[in-house]
Amino acid sequence: PALLPELWTEILVPICAVIGIAFSLFQWYVVSRVKLTSDLGASSSGGANNGKNGYGDYLIEEEEGVNDQSVVAKCAEIQTAISEGATSFLFTEYKYVGVFMIFFAAVIFVFLGSVEGFSTDNKPCTYDTTRTCKPALATAAFSTIAFVLGAVTSVLSGFLGMKIATYANARTTLEARKGVGKAFIVAFRSGAVMGFLLAASGLLVLYITINVFKIYYGDDWEGLFEAITGYGLGGSSMALFGRVGGGIYTKVADVGADLVGKIERNIPEDDPRNPAVIADNVGDNVGDIAGMGSDLFGSYAEASCAALVVASISSFGINHDFTAMCYPLLISSMGILVCLITTLFATDFFEIKLVKEIEPALKNQLIISTVIMTVGIAIVSWVGLPTSFTIFNFGTQKVVKNWQLFLCVCVGLWAGLIIGFVTEYYTSNAYSPVQDVADSCRTGAATNVIFGLALGYKSVIIPIFAIAISIFVSFSFAAMYGVAVAALGMLSTIATGLAIDAYGPISDNAGGIAEMAGMSHRIRERTDALDAAGNTTAAIGKGFAIGSAALVSLALFGAFVSRAGIHTVDVLTPKVIIGLLVGAMLPYWFSAMTMKSVGSAALKMVEEVRRQFNTIPGLMEGTAKPDYATCVKISTDASIKEMIPPGCLVMLTPLIVGFFFGVETLSGVLAGSLVSGVQIAISASNTGGAWDNAKKYIEAGVSEHAKSLGPKGSEPHKAAVIGDTIGDPLKDTSGPSLNILIKLMAVESLVFAPFFATHGGILFKYF
Amino acid sequence: PALLPELWTEILVPICAVIGIAFSLFQWYVVSRVKLTSDLGASSSGGANNGKNGYGDYLIEEEEGVNDQSVVAKCAEIQTAISEGATSFLFTEYKYVGVFMIFFAAVIFVFLGSVEGFSTDNKPCTYDTTRTCKPALATAAFSTIAFVLGAVTSVLSGFLGMKIATYANARTTLEARKGVGKAFIVAFRSGAVMGFLLAASGLLVLYITINVFKIYYGDDWEGLFEAITGYGLGGSSMALFGRVGGGIYTKVADVGADLVGKIERNIPEDDPRNPAVIADNVGDNVGDIAGMGSDLFGSYAEASCAALVVASISSFGINHDFTAMCYPLLISSMGILVCLITTLFATDFFEIKLVKEIEPALKNQLIISTVIMTVGIAIVSWVGLPTSFTIFNFGTQKVVKNWQLFLCVCVGLWAGLIIGFVTEYYTSNAYSPVQDVADSCRTGAATNVIFGLALGYKSVIIPIFAIAISIFVSFSFAAMYGVAVAALGMLSTIATGLAIDAYGPISDNAGGIAEMAGMSHRIRERTDALDAAGNTTAAIGKGFAIGSAALVSLALFGAFVSRAGIHTVDVLTPKVIIGLLVGAMLPYWFSAMTMKSVGSAALKMVEEVRRQFNTIPGLMEGTAKPDYATCVKISTDASIKEMIPPGCLVMLTPLIVGFFFGVETLSGVLAGSLVSGVQIAISASNTGGAWDNAKKYIEAGVSEHAKSLGPKGSEPHKAAVIGDTIGDPLKDTSGPSLNILIKLMAVESLVFAPFFATHGGILFKYF
Repeated sequence: PALLPELWTEILVPICAVIGIAFSLFQWYVVSRVKLTSDLGASSSGGANNGKNGYGDYLIEEEEGVNDQSVVAKCAEIQTAISEGATSFLFTEYKYVGVFMIFFAAVIFVFLGSVEGFSTDNKPCTYDTTRTCKPALATAAFSTIAFVLGAVTSVLSGFLGMKIATYANARTTLEARKGVGKAFIVAFRSGAVMGFLLAASGLLVLYITINVFKIYYGDDWEGLFEAITGYGLGGSSMALFGRVGGGIYTKVADVGADLVGKIERNIPEDDPRNPAVIADNVGDNVGDIAGMGSDLFGSYAEASCAALVVASISSFGINHDFTAMCYPLLISSMGILVCLITTLFATDFFEIKLVKEIEPALKNQLIISTVIMTVGIAIVSWVGLPTSFTIFNFGTQKVVKNWQLFLCVCVGLWAGLIIGFVTEYYTSNAYSPVQDVADSCRTGAATNVIFGLALGYKSVIIPIFAIAISIFVSFSFAAMYGVAVAALGMLSTIATGLAIDAYGPISDNAGGIAEMAGMSHRIRERTDALDAAGNTTAAIGKGFAIGSAALVSLALFGAFVSRAGIHTVDVLTPKVIIGLLVGAMLPYWFSAMTMKSVGSAALKMVEEVRRQFNTIPGLMEGTAKPDYATCVKISTDASIKEMIPPGCLVMLTPLIVGFFFGVETLSGVLAGSLVSGVQIAISASNTGGAWDNAKKYIEAGVSEHAKSLGPKGSEPHKAAVIGDTIGDPLKDTSGPSLNILIKLMAVESLVFAPFFATHGGILFKYF
Repeated sequence: PALLPELWTEILVPICAVIGIAFSLFQWYVVSRVKLTSDLGASSSGGANNGKNGYGDYLIEEEEGVNDQSVVAKCAEIQTAISEGATSFLFTEYKYVGVFMIFFAAVIFVFLGSVEGFSTDNKPCTYDTTRTCKPALATAAFSTIAFVLGAVTSVLSGFLGMKIATYANARTTLEARKGVGKAFIVAFRSGAVMGFLLAASGLLVLYITINVFKIYYGDDWEGLFEAITGYGLGGSSMALFGRVGGGIYTKVADVGADLVGKIERNIPEDDPRNPAVIADNVGDNVGDIAGMGSDLFGSYAEASCAALVVASISSFGINHDFTAMCYPLLISSMGILVCLITTLFATDFFEIKLVKEIEPALKNQLIISTVIMTVGIAIVSWVGLPTSFTIFNFGTQKVVKNWQLFLCVCVGLWAGLIIGFVTEYYTSNAYSPVQDVADSCRTGAATNVIFGLALGYKSVIIPIFAIAISIFVSFSFAAMYGVAVAALGMLSTIATGLAIDAYGPISDNAGGIAEMAGMSHRIRERTDALDAAGNTTAAIGKGFAIGSAALVSLALFGAFVSRAGIHTVDVLTPKVIIGLLVGAMLPYWFSAMTMKSVGSAALKMVEEVRRQFNTIPGLMEGTAKPDYATCVKISTDASIKEMIPPGCLVMLTPLIVGFFFGVETLSGVLAGSLVSGVQIAISASNTGGAWDNAKKYIEAGVSEHAKSLGPKGSEPHKAAVIGDTIGDPLKDTSGPSLNILIKLMAVESLVFAPFFATHGGILFKYF
């Protein structure tokens, strides 16, 4: 058995989760000390009138008209508008999602209950037939409960993330008056609030659920952890709607705003005269924050569930070694502590003073957390695991040493870092790939697009090798359990990953607020610098999300195969190969839907924005206010309506394939969509990121080369804007949604595996 | 045994091949009756002065200055320039390819000879150990010979196709003076020359090779047909260079010409003032004609080889039933006869008078050939097969009935038709998908690109289902033999397919010649109508090429697995899953290379074209001639240089993976690249085709909707031109080259299978 006694495990896991939540609340408190009020109390929140702004520092650079109360009030007002827009969209989304959740919960209960004809009798266990396990009906009921818990946690994660982001954006703008370092800290702390809250609450809810379910299940860990997989399904299915709905929302607004504002009317980004500007800023919060949060929460929940369900039929489960069983939770607990220390490096140990220190600071976060976490994993593997144990490997038990499992987790962790750096290389305008893309704008938009697509394709190579090596090492050492813990390794620094990721949209919003509040150009330059770094970290975050999704789906796929009772998935059988082919097609189908949705809805947005410019007198002159609400409504309606078809594609495919064609074909579909989807997701994200930063490169004009392409409004710049616009749906809608496609189909198959194994494949049964 | 006696088979196959060649020569003769000379003998070819042009018909519509000798002479001159440019490029290409061929022939000989340490002793057969087979050294030698034969046949197919195309283009232009019907007939007959020549000579050379090799091999059919697989490898590896080199050539010229001519200088396509215009027209011939010809020849050769090698270890081979063994050749023989009849429907039975009759006539070719071929397959299956026989199925023998094999061939044939029609639907501007894309040009290039990409992704769905169903049916009935004959079924109407395919670039060239020769606008309109139909048929041809490539690769993959001695390819083993993941990445890597090559070389072309416009006085006014030769040289140099890295990627991957990682990982790589590559190839081709036709839709302005987007030079039209330019490398370089990637890796693995099985996987052996 493991060195760490069971009681300690029972205590340590929740303590780490609580520490994470406390740390998150503390960061929130620090951010809240930046007051959105001013001397004369003209603001909406009406706080203390201390004559200073924030921590008690005086503003470093006082500027004419910048510090007066009207600007602060204006910021507060814009923030409120964004926050209200985001809240209203999310509530609308949750209404639809809630209906779906109830319906799908019923499906889970009925399908899983039907496996043994709703019998309430105990039955012999599947893997250890000498013992008695709880009936399938119980698994159905508890899976349904776990599903609902996962869904609610996911929704809460996204919602709270959005709340803190819309709380922090105006505060970042105000702090930018004091210098770039102050603004950075606020944005980063706010990101950390989201990161820690999500990581810790995900862990806590999972821990509590396991312990509560155990009261009923007792010694039947096989059934217990089967039921727990519902938690992953719940988390991931909410993430689907969050990512797709949020992704469509944000890009409809963004593309619509850019097409008319930047290209036709030649007004700057985030100009308050643009009617779609509020919708655009709302979009950043519902798409990049709430969507991303749900997505990574889903990955985390699924990786944990995949590891637990495999462990339950390995020696940990068979011998009832609770500490070893909780190894995945211990890794996550350690991750929270490591990320806490890492965060202090950015917020307390060092101070950022210059623009060029921002990107290194963010990159150092990744490196520091990875290095410390390596030590953390070693400790957990040493105290949390027996020196030798067995892992279920498709019908046989494989002997594994604790140092091997340590390597499995590490390989995932470090692969994540490599993916992060490769993504940075291909999407940051500090390196030649993006500069080449920018250079190709000389000959127009066509060459820009050709170069951008080629860059995205090329950027797939190293991440795929990194993922392949992780899979090979972890699979060889510890079968599917190894792959699952490798995924957990990659996700163990999720709090830091999310912090630097959420930092991006917050800075983006801060820039938008500065522009809209009419603050001076210098403030905008500072927020732009924060935002450029944020573009790269967003791409890195997507890289992590995709890499972990690949590992997680494979682990889930393996767990599905185990649970469905098949021992090989032979490509050279007709059922599997057609599944593989069709599965590899699904990401294209899905992308076609989401891209087309953004395109069509953006056309509507363009028409509305044009209409307002043409019919509202004085709008271009800035004397009349645009009708922001109509644009917000177009985005909301479009995203709600358009998220349903791709959502159905993902949710129904495993059910249809499993029910009609059986588990072999479903295995093929899962493998096919996994290997094909990862590539499209990476290339789409990186192509989009590169185009965005190529445009920023030309705009910023920091080098001779960049100056020769600019300035704003030049022909190369126009070509770059076209590329950026094309990249928007690729990088923020279709690309990241594919993570969810591959994960969700796998976890859904896993949850329904007993149903498919019993009642599935009816086409082949009868023909 | 089969109804058809062996002697009859020995006679019928070559007779059909000879009929095909004779028919091809007859068509050539008919085309040659259109004289490139005129009354006063000012032309370059100096033929009969009969005072009329061609068949003896008087010109229907005499136009001022159109019929005078200077125009005819001009056409002849331009044709000569194009023909010389194409010939010179192909000879340069063949020089490099020749070096590669010699080197690779040596690799084949050494690697395969080393399997038994270059022993010259006979050995027990692999599948029937009671008998004696020829040594591995013999297989090495004969494989090498077959490789060279396949390569030479492929090169000849491409070269002759190019020759007839550059012979026919100016003749099509001249016939266009008499009406659209006459021009159509010339272009179509020329396409038929290429189609029949290629199909028949491929069959004849294969047939002769088998019979000659049989003199040495005698009863050892296992070794005989193993050696024959070299023929497929030779054909396909030449196709690689033809497709990639030709594809880069044509698009560098096209993109370069368009970027400066159409976008910057606002002069029409094919304007003789554009320095890149000759290179552009040469490109159509070396890329779309020679490249396409080699590609389809490769598919045909590989499908035949895959079927034969599986048959040789099935009851056909074991019982030495020569007629049944030759079933694949009989299908192809029947295909030649069926296509011959089909061609008469277009050239003799009906006459085209109106523009709107062109597309239906081409579509009818597909339908007629498919319907007649269905009967043909039934006859061949009835007389050429025993009523019941066994097929090798990964270690076991599976009993198959002749009607089942009939269904296998049919399902491939009809899947081809479905793929053709779906492709037409998504790429023809007669239907809503392309019209939607055109409509999105209203809001600029960005939405055009987003809609176009979405269209390409969506167009994958039905073809993939069609391929999946073909695979399922043929695989279930007759294992890998079924898949191979399904591929042959799809390729059985190759003569017709190639005819309508080659027709496109010929019409394109004809239009270019009309423009350059300064012929009247009405001539150009007629050739444009031919060309628009040709764009769609080119897309259909690519659809066929991709669909057949998918089936062929699977068959080759199956044959490889059989020959490598592994019985399952289990996705859930570390070696296979990493292969699958990396294999799915290869098409992206490959596309990145080819897209970037086109982009970079196009930039050089743009600079040269700009330089000429800026430095040659009187060029824009038409008083000075541009320097065409420099542009031809840029295209030639770029394509030769840039075809090497992607060529190496494809040729080396199987060798490296097989040698270092072994046959299991190689199996994964093949399956991964197959399922991923098919999707990218289809979506890239269709996206490009749709953009091209969306642009043509706006230009032609035949409907109210189209008129509202036009005319040429309007903002939507400019956006459409950008889309068209982006689509060029997608549809003509990276997309179609992927067919070759997936086929070639599979056939190479098959040829080297004994080597990998003996010496491969050294990394896992030693670590």
